[in-house]
Amino acid sequence: MNATQLDTLRALLARQFAKHVDSNYILTSEEERCPYECDGLSAYRYLPLIVVLPADSAQVQAILEICHEQSVPVVARGAGTGLSGGALPLAHGVLLSLARLNQIIEIDPDNSRARVQPGVRNLAISEAAKPYGLHYAPDPSSQIACSIGGNVAENAGGVHCLKYGLTVNNLLTLQVILADGELVTIGGGGLDSPGYDLLALMTGSEGMLGIIVEITVKLLPIPERAQVAMAAFNNVEQAGQAVADIIAAGILPSGLEMMDNLAIRAAEDFVQANYPVDAAAILLCEVDGGEAEITEEIAKVKQCLLDSGSTEVQTARDDAERARFWAGRKAAFPAVGRISPDYYCMDGTIPRRHLPRVLREITEMSAQFGLRAANVFHAGDGNLHPLILYNGNNPGELERAEQFGGKILELCVEVGGTITGEHGVGLEKINQMCVQFPPEELTLFHQVKACFDPDGLLNPNKAIPTLNRCAEFGAMHIHAGDERFPHLERF
Amino acid sequence: MNATQLDTLRALLARQFAKHVDSNYILTSEEERCPYECDGLSAYRYLPLIVVLPADSAQVQAILEICHEQSVPVVARGAGTGLSGGALPLAHGVLLSLARLNQIIEIDPDNSRARVQPGVRNLAISEAAKPYGLHYAPDPSSQIACSIGGNVAENAGGVHCLKYGLTVNNLLTLQVILADGELVTIGGGGLDSPGYDLLALMTGSEGMLGIIVEITVKLLPIPERAQVAMAAFNNVEQAGQAVADIIAAGILPSGLEMMDNLAIRAAEDFVQANYPVDAAAILLCEVDGGEAEITEEIAKVKQCLLDSGSTEVQTARDDAERARFWAGRKAAFPAVGRISPDYYCMDGTIPRRHLPRVLREITEMSAQFGLRAANVFHAGDGNLHPLILYNGNNPGELERAEQFGGKILELCVEVGGTITGEHGVGLEKINQMCVQFPPEELTLFHQVKACFDPDGLLNPNKAIPTLNRCAEFGAMHIHAGDERFPHLERF
Repeated sequence: MNATQLDTLRALLARQFAKHVDSNYILTSEEERCPYECDGLSAYRYLPLIVVLPADSAQVQAILEICHEQSVPVVARGAGTGLSGGALPLAHGVLLSLARLNQIIEIDPDNSRARVQPGVRNLAISEAAKPYGLHYAPDPSSQIACSIGGNVAENAGGVHCLKYGLTVNNLLTLQVILADGELVTIGGGGLDSPGYDLLALMTGSEGMLGIIVEITVKLLPIPERAQVAMAAFNNVEQAGQAVADIIAAGILPSGLEMMDNLAIRAAEDFVQANYPVDAAAILLCEVDGGEAEITEEIAKVKQCLLDSGSTEVQTARDDAERARFWAGRKAAFPAVGRISPDYYCMDGTIPRRHLPRVLREITEMSAQFGLRAANVFHAGDGNLHPLILYNGNNPGELERAEQFGGKILELCVEVGGTITGEHGVGLEKINQMCVQFPPEELTLFHQVKACFDPDGLLNPNKAIPTLNRCAEFGAMHIHAGDERFPHLERF
Repeated sequence: MNATQLDTLRALLARQFAKHVDSNYILTSEEERCPYECDGLSAYRYLPLIVVLPADSAQVQAILEICHEQSVPVVARGAGTGLSGGALPLAHGVLLSLARLNQIIEIDPDNSRARVQPGVRNLAISEAAKPYGLHYAPDPSSQIACSIGGNVAENAGGVHCLKYGLTVNNLLTLQVILADGELVTIGGGGLDSPGYDLLALMTGSEGMLGIIVEITVKLLPIPERAQVAMAAFNNVEQAGQAVADIIAAGILPSGLEMMDNLAIRAAEDFVQANYPVDAAAILLCEVDGGEAEITEEIAKVKQCLLDSGSTEVQTARDDAERARFWAGRKAAFPAVGRISPDYYCMDGTIPRRHLPRVLREITEMSAQFGLRAANVFHAGDGNLHPLILYNGNNPGELERAEQFGGKILELCVEVGGTITGEHGVGLEKINQMCVQFPPEELTLFHQVKACFDPDGLLNPNKAIPTLNRCAEFGAMHIHAGDERFPHLERF
């Protein structure tokens, strides 16, 4: 489509949307559309054709019916905090923001559940449930800003997901509008539901199967108390062993996080968490529950940490110290931002026993690519977040960072892991999907997609690569070295 | 197909299967096929056209390729303990038994997982993992006999699923053979996987999407210790309130079971568990974990039970008494079998707060249908198992039991619950699926089915009713009273 055709289409859509949506919430000027050109993966940007912010489910339905009729693709967006480019708009498509569907419809303490609209912030649910002694467990780092609809679309995790599960484990029902405008309710109130598990299928489907307009989440009692142990190690292998030992001892920590030396130093410089800056790695291990339970568990945790070679184990003396221990971990990403002009956050998952090997190979790759990497991760579930440090102003560095990141993900697959733990595939990792899955399984994915969205209008070209793309990526992959943003070029 | 045509088809399949499978494992005579005519729902019986017991995954693949070529439907069968008729064979179809795929391929304590074939018994996994201090958590009552492949196909639960989740929450990967013979591996080693969640989609799909030939399950540490409290109540409402109070107090029991007076008396007569036989209901609440943790939790449990009106709370003095408390619950089904010539076990799930209302209405229906009902259920997750007592030799009683059961399931849907908690839909509850789901969602189910099995060869006419069937059921449903086994007649 050329510029004139795009202008014509934009005007047509604006007129049709205006029959249903207050025209203040239909954005057509370049200035108004600009804030929507990227999500948290800001290396990729496109100006959407038009932006629309419906007020309710009926308006979402009307918008999808119009787009279906006009064969215009639609990209849904929550808070735009996603890190894999899942909400990157299309130059010839509608950007559908769910920000105005931000009501907490009901907190139901009797049945430990909350019914909310997709634009509600993750943390706002726990705040609303607090008077009843309840909270919503999944807590992505962005929980102050990210919206629950986006959490469902990406199957978001967080520090506490080792114990309390991912988003998918904390959902009861979804109301979803399909590509043709049809509203369906999926899932059920009970532990299990008859029929195929469409709830799990929809969760983590990155806006490609339907637009979520209402969500019923489970609420859990707020744990009585929590306690954290911080352990220092002289080498990363021992820290990895401690993780395995804690889990093997039958303890299910509510958080089990690892940071390597570069991350420790960056965090300490930034927030003075009183971390041991000479340690090769630290582990933070939190347990929660009743008083007696956590006293017993933290003692076991300390023993595991010392047995596996920790040089120093501290437990928080009070809640203030516990908050300080966590402050460094929570500020790790911005802390790394202070020591490098740019960084690229990766997200892969590996079986825990391969932690030492993978960390060693990341160190080797770091030397090979001439780029530093800080490691901060959810050790308990083997979810790595290597941060690759680079300077976007130095020619070639972004490309090297991208290649380095790609190699890390391929290594994750090689040891039996996956290319994402909690950030989703989006546009960022679409080529690595070719490494993760054989053609038969990609074909199944496309067939499932076609059930829900036969015309391919919802978030096209994200998450699931075509077999053609994989063939091209495979070819480039073999010749190596010279591919730059192959997915962006063909996007 | 007439008898001659069936004989010809049977001979053809036997010849073709014999190229791949030892002919001792191809059963063609009526005598040999007879044991496969039903599963645990023995009210429905069909002699399968032919029975085949492959030795490995390659043989399963060959069988499916042959069936695909000949357009012959295939019903898979594990241990045949299913209670909803999911493995009921077809007179014109192949019965594929996975009993010979019974190897535990690997117990991997380092990564807390086991790789097993589908014919392995549920309990055998825990037995093999025991030397490593690990176990497989989901524990259906039939765990001594039922196979893990069937557990996956039905997304089986059990007493411990309140705390440890259903089968779907304890899986990592599946190897599945699709209807055309293609082998795919779904799921991944990590907590989350990219792509659509086909693992959850396949789990509970009742043999309609593919044949499972290998399963990787999660293993959990065996809890250090467990303690159980038994509480008696003068009315069922108070027992229901106690359930809500325990969960609200932040306790996640490893088991929370309720029995009503009829079930209590039957169990006591059978196994002398020392139950209070005059109680309207008893609750059994078990907690597990470390010594201090369970001491603390059981004290809170006792308080909740007394506060909600329990007339008597006992805690087990030792493991022998704990086993005795559970013996009555575990023997409840056969105990009811002793007081009635036949019983019909239902399986519905409701939001916990509706327990009192649903139990009251079941009592009313019991009078209306002139049939006794004993209630035994997983109270913590609102999963009811009313046992309807009848005598199949009295004309009309089976039909009345069926109608009574159908009404119970419809009541479950009415209060916001579902028509199955853990037994699956199979053939038994296919009409109630019309009550549970609107046509839009049933259509989605059929579309998903068509992705995996476009010719509809895998376990046809189970679990997901056609819209036509629902229309007919709806019509009959309105006129009421005179429908008898409508699903069987049209099967």
